[in-house]
Amino acid sequence: MRAMNLLLLDPQEWPAGTADRALLRLTGRRADHIRTVLKAAPGDSVRIGVLDGLTGLARVEDLSAQEVVLDAVLDTPPPPPLPLTLLLALPRPKVLRRVLQAATSLGIKQIHLINSFRVEKSYWQTPFLQPDSIHQQLRLGLEQARDTILPQVHIHTRFKPFVEDELPALAMGKRCLVAHPLPESQSCPATLNEQTVLAVGPEGGFIPYEVEKLQQTGFTAVTLGPRILKVETAIPALVARLFFP
Amino acid sequence: MRAMNLLLLDPQEWPAGTADRALLRLTGRRADHIRTVLKAAPGDSVRIGVLDGLTGLARVEDLSAQEVVLDAVLDTPPPPPLPLTLLLALPRPKVLRRVLQAATSLGIKQIHLINSFRVEKSYWQTPFLQPDSIHQQLRLGLEQARDTILPQVHIHTRFKPFVEDELPALAMGKRCLVAHPLPESQSCPATLNEQTVLAVGPEGGFIPYEVEKLQQTGFTAVTLGPRILKVETAIPALVARLFFP
Repeated sequence: MRAMNLLLLDPQEWPAGTADRALLRLTGRRADHIRTVLKAAPGDSVRIGVLDGLTGLARVEDLSAQEVVLDAVLDTPPPPPLPLTLLLALPRPKVLRRVLQAATSLGIKQIHLINSFRVEKSYWQTPFLQPDSIHQQLRLGLEQARDTILPQVHIHTRFKPFVEDELPALAMGKRCLVAHPLPESQSCPATLNEQTVLAVGPEGGFIPYEVEKLQQTGFTAVTLGPRILKVETAIPALVARLFFP
Repeated sequence: MRAMNLLLLDPQEWPAGTADRALLRLTGRRADHIRTVLKAAPGDSVRIGVLDGLTGLARVEDLSAQEVVLDAVLDTPPPPPLPLTLLLALPRPKVLRRVLQAATSLGIKQIHLINSFRVEKSYWQTPFLQPDSIHQQLRLGLEQARDTILPQVHIHTRFKPFVEDELPALAMGKRCLVAHPLPESQSCPATLNEQTVLAVGPEGGFIPYEVEKLQQTGFTAVTLGPRILKVETAIPALVARLFFP
């Protein structure tokens, strides 16, 4: 059983031709969820959203073994996205799923999974990198944070070609940071609401060659202090530091 | 296989009578770890620490199937603790383990696991609340962050007696915050290095009665914005916001 702070609908589930209010008839997994997890009764309201669209409230009109009928209104934009592009050395599969969810819930919309010397080759074989599996984690993250805007996940299996051929265009005009402890690393800057590219290494960190390549592309090494954090702990901390007002 | 940024020794593993330098002979799990995970060779250095003591570097002098011999120096204090007492509604067991590790790696030294209306009763039955299991997660968190100071974990299975009878003494003279979205919730304050008690609710949040009880004890409701985050994402974000310089 998991909490769901928003029931995320696909655009084709919203009746064609209606604008911001509709009577929805949900069956299957969604109806089950409303009945058994949310334990909603007629008259209750559940929060809904349409993928890549608005959010709102839906009043449970009727609820049977076959279907749930909702009177739904879409009137509220999703929470604002973060102005952040995350470059993330591919973590091990179990962590990958959690990190995709967490990054999505934090409002990150551009995620680049990249290779690094310390990424084990076997990680690239995981079924969790299949588009369907990624999509599922992103949806869970959206539902957690009451968001509707699906992040884009890009996969780069080779470090050097990515950094040399693709990163300069991605990084252009943006603040570029790599979370990496160097003697000269700066304290991670705070609350500057500007377009940022943030690179986060694997367990054990980027190797010096990789940090140098990023520095040559305009990245500055930053740190959160003497503690080494797991990637799933470091990302929320870095995001809060960089962007939370 | 997991990374270990520091090899944490028990005080009794440090030879009696020696001060800051000693020849250590490690066998079993520790020797295996140095051989197979750290893949250390004679001449390599590994970071070590003594539980509740100093950290330092140890040079691998000899390495056989039976034992690993280290020339170890203790000369560096562990990273500073956070001035934070965390009150955490008991999460589900799988999350509990991860959160204890993450909270420890962030430098939290006082953790109170508390009850709340939305904590499922079955969560209190988990073997992960046994002292040995908790100790193991705390050690993993210390090794991750190169820390040595074991946090204290306190368990309170009833909300009202804890808040009425124990919390006032814990909270005295400290800034008291509850992470909870209310219409009047303030944005979480930033970087004030003062003694703080932070309460974090369960999935679904504290119920109004619980928030009111905390407010009556001097707690202020704060929020990180419109996104609802999982507890394992919220805690690093709150800590970074509150304390990272």
